[in-house]
Amino acid sequence: MGMNDFIKSPDERMNRQLLFSAEIDKMTSILRRTVLIDKSRRENDAEHSWHIAVMAMLFSEYASEPVDIGRVVQMCVVHDLVEIEAGDTFAYDTAGNEDKAEREKIAADKLFSKLPDDQGKMIRSLWEEFDAMETPDSKYAACMDGIQPFLHNTLTDGHTWVEGGTNRAAVEKRVEIIRDFMPEVYAWVEKNIDAAVEKGWLISG
Amino acid sequence: MGMNDFIKSPDERMNRQLLFSAEIDKMTSILRRTVLIDKSRRENDAEHSWHIAVMAMLFSEYASEPVDIGRVVQMCVVHDLVEIEAGDTFAYDTAGNEDKAEREKIAADKLFSKLPDDQGKMIRSLWEEFDAMETPDSKYAACMDGIQPFLHNTLTDGHTWVEGGTNRAAVEKRVEIIRDFMPEVYAWVEKNIDAAVEKGWLISG
Repeated sequence: MGMNDFIKSPDERMNRQLLFSAEIDKMTSILRRTVLIDKSRRENDAEHSWHIAVMAMLFSEYASEPVDIGRVVQMCVVHDLVEIEAGDTFAYDTAGNEDKAEREKIAADKLFSKLPDDQGKMIRSLWEEFDAMETPDSKYAACMDGIQPFLHNTLTDGHTWVEGGTNRAAVEKRVEIIRDFMPEVYAWVEKNIDAAVEKGWLISG
Repeated sequence: MGMNDFIKSPDERMNRQLLFSAEIDKMTSILRRTVLIDKSRRENDAEHSWHIAVMAMLFSEYASEPVDIGRVVQMCVVHDLVEIEAGDTFAYDTAGNEDKAEREKIAADKLFSKLPDDQGKMIRSLWEEFDAMETPDSKYAACMDGIQPFLHNTLTDGHTWVEGGTNRAAVEKRVEIIRDFMPEVYAWVEKNIDAAVEKGWLISG
């Protein structure tokens, strides 16, 4: 049996919700550049989204503005859904990031139209808020989205940094939001950037 | 570099939070019986937790009591954390389920003591609430925890049902909470149980 002979409920709205739930299982096969901390394999989008959601429950005390954790956790679990259609764009891929916004907009149109209108709009608006990084909730979610792979890199010999021949300035740009929104956490980040340069995981400058 | 030479922050509380964040990455290697919908491999706890968290954002309209979605999503992402220490207990494993509560209590003591006290208590209490299944939020989370693998089974030729030689009564018991708390969704579940028996994925009776 496959999706084509999905047994329907008489309720069309519920069918859309169930089929969307099945559709997003594809997040488990969208691989990121980051490896798991045990280095056994690359991490996927479902795992990453889950990981930053739990982290969002732990670090709010360092946020420089109050955040709504229940909302941020929802934002975290849906923030990468459009990659089901658009694929993952590596944070340090300059060319890929140039047309990322346009590709993801088309992906969002396609993906979220599978949900009942009101729910498609609700999830899309959380994703757009995340992407715009203008509200405290989205800034905090973006910090989690930065700290998690940073933590993985520090515990896996700088895996993605080394693989990409990354320089210090690129990482600093990527973690700017942590510097601005979570300065106490940034102190730890900075120490690790220094160490990564010393160890040769990052190119200085 | 491994966890042993983790570069510390001068802030001991933050270290605990960061190390706990690294620790829970182990959820990605705890395999469940359920296979992914594309049947490529077994699902892991991180993926499952993420999946039910997103589903919790979609099905609350069928809950028979009001639920706090932001709270439920947090419950979903932490509900299986103790399996880092205790391992996954298959829903239809009678022997494994006999000492599950005791094993998981010991696991919780060990795992949550790694967090700052207040946060260990906060996550533990969400997990205990989930497990007791007495509040609307935990009943709703339990429904998601039941619907997700049920949906996977219906879309993968009854994978875990067939593998375990499962009978109809065992599945009905597993989804009792859906029958009681989300009757409209249960109508769809029941139709699929009927179909699964007809197709020979479930033993009738």
